Amino acid sequence: MEKLKKEIESWISEYFKGKGSYNKRVYEAIIYSLDAGGKRIRPLLFLLTYMLKNDDYKSVLPIAAAIEMIHTYSLIHDDLPCMDNDDLRRGKPTNHKVFGEAIAVLAGDGLLNEAMNIMFKYCIDSDKNSIRACSVISESAGVEGMVGGQTVDILSENKKILIDQLYYMHSKKTGALINASIVAGAILGNASESDMNNLDYYGQKLGLAFQIKDDILDIVGDTKVLGKKAKSDLDNHKTTFITTYGLNKCMEMCNSLTGECIEVLDKVKGDTSKLKELTLFLLNREK
Amino acid sequence: MEKLKKEIESWISEYFKGKGSYNKRVYEAIIYSLDAGGKRIRPLLFLLTYMLKNDDYKSVLPIAAAIEMIHTYSLIHDDLPCMDNDDLRRGKPTNHKVFGEAIAVLAGDGLLNEAMNIMFKYCIDSDKNSIRACSVISESAGVEGMVGGQTVDILSENKKILIDQLYYMHSKKTGALINASIVAGAILGNASESDMNNLDYYGQKLGLAFQIKDDILDIVGDTKVLGKKAKSDLDNHKTTFITTYGLNKCMEMCNSLTGECIEVLDKVKGDTSKLKELTLFLLNREK
Repeated sequence: MEKLKKEIESWISEYFKGKGSYNKRVYEAIIYSLDAGGKRIRPLLFLLTYMLKNDDYKSVLPIAAAIEMIHTYSLIHDDLPCMDNDDLRRGKPTNHKVFGEAIAVLAGDGLLNEAMNIMFKYCIDSDKNSIRACSVISESAGVEGMVGGQTVDILSENKKILIDQLYYMHSKKTGALINASIVAGAILGNASESDMNNLDYYGQKLGLAFQIKDDILDIVGDTKVLGKKAKSDLDNHKTTFITTYGLNKCMEMCNSLTGECIEVLDKVKGDTSKLKELTLFLLNREK
Repeated sequence: MEKLKKEIESWISEYFKGKGSYNKRVYEAIIYSLDAGGKRIRPLLFLLTYMLKNDDYKSVLPIAAAIEMIHTYSLIHDDLPCMDNDDLRRGKPTNHKVFGEAIAVLAGDGLLNEAMNIMFKYCIDSDKNSIRACSVISESAGVEGMVGGQTVDILSENKKILIDQLYYMHSKKTGALINASIVAGAILGNASESDMNNLDYYGQKLGLAFQIKDDILDIVGDTKVLGKKAKSDLDNHKTTFITTYGLNKCMEMCNSLTGECIEVLDKVKGDTSKLKELTLFLLNREK
């Protein structure tokens, strides 16, 4: 897993190597956030799913990188003063704190756009499945995906929202790209229809478990370990899984969802042990 | 031409019809800017180029719409307080003035993303040429395109910049998408290699003429007619073609570039009269 993570990181660093002239500053901002020590969960999920039936993971590294770039763009924009106004991310000052708001907006725009560039280029020499997989990733980031989730998040600050809306928000904001990474890996990896359905189900449950765990960490976590401000949801008066269900019930839900993930992975053909390992890591993480 | 413009607009309005639930606000912001009365120059250039050899323009309307959406996203983000801080665009309050900064950032993100969604979906059922055309459009919006140009624009406020940098800035910020619209139209329209080269040259000259005209209008134009604040370049102490060459020389350059455009169009196979008409319209426009 550590090896895969390194390969994703070197692909990204190769991609940006030597780029830029008068626009160099925006590349610096982009690289700053890409290098800030992310867990690379989404590209790992993508690769591990793809690898259930395929060994040549190197050929799909561009797509893994594109997924991580979309994730990073969303963090930069979410941290902006007009959004969550966060000063700290992964233990470092947020992008706009270092580069200013204008460059941070452009770094986010640029990352989203470069991810799409990489995917289109990849598709030129590939088959229909590649386009379908890229389309799934692109959709998950759009207005019916991450942008939609963040919209609801912003609109619900200082408001009590319905449970239905809370699930909507998280399934879009966090769940969509997690699920799309898994589904895209399955499509590119030529998964059977039954495996595809099971992996899709796995992606949905994992996305939800991931967000509940995030909400738990916001309450019980430590700013130093988290690398971002703890209790920020409380400060922003946000409705979370914690305010809705309470801490104990959330821990129960998280455990039970993780159990469901492991169970459905047992139905999928191929060696799912690495996916299970990552699933358990996500349950037990401290940041 | 007016008919084509209407068709682009109805495709876009159909696309967004009935969309949205909890995220409805971001759709409202997106539609507000898309409906603000743009000239639709880029999608028209794309369609007219495609139509040099093909009648079935309806099949490529999704790509025309995607181009307009990328353009609109860039306007929303460029107007933000942290960027150019503009209150007025096309005679209406800018997006963030109506919807707030957070939703304006998300509306821009959403538009860029939806444009990519539309292009990926289009490519699933099309040939390699479609992917190549979409890749050209996506590249033109990225860090080596519009994002790069806007970066230099932001960094050069209150600074005197070199002529080389001025050309870089505009060829990326304005020129890139104009040129990509024409080149993508040529690729999708199966233009011959020689036509492709001539159309590419046309796109480059037209993009430059367009920007010089913009700089001229910023000086001689009227806020009411322009629909955006006149003399904003002066106020922001920007290096422009006017501050570099003076007004008269700029008018001369604009005429001469337009002449070059018409000349190179004469070398292209097919009926280029509509493209010429649009080229002259751009030279003589008052907004």
